[in-house]
Amino acid sequence: MREAYHVQLDELADQLADMCSQVANAMEYATQALLEADLELAEQVIGDDTKIDDARSSCEEQAYALLALQAPVATDLRTVLAAIHAAESLERMGDLALHVAKGARRRHPHRVLPDQVADYFQEMGKVTVRMARQAEQVIRGKDVDSARELESDDDEVDDLHRHLFTVLMDRDWPHGVATAVDVTLLGRFYERFADHAVSVGRRVVFMVTGKMPGYEHDDV
Amino acid sequence: MREAYHVQLDELADQLADMCSQVANAMEYATQALLEADLELAEQVIGDDTKIDDARSSCEEQAYALLALQAPVATDLRTVLAAIHAAESLERMGDLALHVAKGARRRHPHRVLPDQVADYFQEMGKVTVRMARQAEQVIRGKDVDSARELESDDDEVDDLHRHLFTVLMDRDWPHGVATAVDVTLLGRFYERFADHAVSVGRRVVFMVTGKMPGYEHDDV
Repeated sequence: MREAYHVQLDELADQLADMCSQVANAMEYATQALLEADLELAEQVIGDDTKIDDARSSCEEQAYALLALQAPVATDLRTVLAAIHAAESLERMGDLALHVAKGARRRHPHRVLPDQVADYFQEMGKVTVRMARQAEQVIRGKDVDSARELESDDDEVDDLHRHLFTVLMDRDWPHGVATAVDVTLLGRFYERFADHAVSVGRRVVFMVTGKMPGYEHDDV
Repeated sequence: MREAYHVQLDELADQLADMCSQVANAMEYATQALLEADLELAEQVIGDDTKIDDARSSCEEQAYALLALQAPVATDLRTVLAAIHAAESLERMGDLALHVAKGARRRHPHRVLPDQVADYFQEMGKVTVRMARQAEQVIRGKDVDSARELESDDDEVDDLHRHLFTVLMDRDWPHGVATAVDVTLLGRFYERFADHAVSVGRRVVFMVTGKMPGYEHDDV
């Protein structure tokens, strides 16, 4: 039974790693769609979101089967529950990429972002996509150390997000209120995506080590 | 064992109902703090948030104990997992009330909200607090019908949120960009709180009936 448990857990981990890759792609394409007002790419992200939702359902079913058939206790039980939570965060990351893509679509053929803030989004996009790929590596390589890098990447996104707000709050912001509202919400989507990536990292570290990392993140 | 399972499940349901009451209070006080620039009340909500986090941990521990000791399968298993998800949503609702309170504190002694939009927040506050109390009633009274009301309340919050945006996007918005940014984020906190309340309602209906309600909500 321990054998079967580990085989099923490995399958579940593989599914989570696939989800990481899916949400990394979604955020990469959504960011490109946003920066380049690329409607086709935005539509692709929007259309693909149901695949991420399906992957989450599939992870949950796999986890339920594992709980029902193996009835794990103690650390094994918590490991499966960590996977369920990770799948939930990953679905939410997919939703946030979807929101970015919808933002790009809503203003098409215009660009949503004034040049003044485009670089912030380029950079937030780069770092958040890297985080999702890093989470994938943590799972596939059982590479716990690289989970730590998620923390520093999250700090980087928080810094970018804070700077973005100082640009917005500047009395001389020349792009009007409607654009400021768009930029505010879009910025938040990246910041939340990064928070969830950290949370996924923590859960998968637990899956690999049986211990929850001691570091804290800002779950805001 | 079925007996013990039901006793433990009832205890878990009681804890979830208590959490509903906590987050309802948090959102009620946070809204009042926001509307009246009441620093003391804002601080109270901010200080009390750890109690909600603790309540969530306690729910999870109770759920883990139930899984480990009773090893439920099929619907019983899904019921316990629904409770774990509900506790997570409730903690998040507490975080959102916390963000509202922090928004009030950040601008103190000034009010964050111009008179032009204060009514929207008063109303969104009223409806979202009602939703959290409704979720409590669904659990305590095993009152599945009233879970349906959560859906129409959520629609009401979405409508208010949409109207708020048309006010913000109006070319004649006279309150500047910084205030618009504050209002944008605060509006989103209420909208997300309502979404999570619907999600909690669906989970607890599942806990009571063993069936997931067929209606859909916008998990955006």
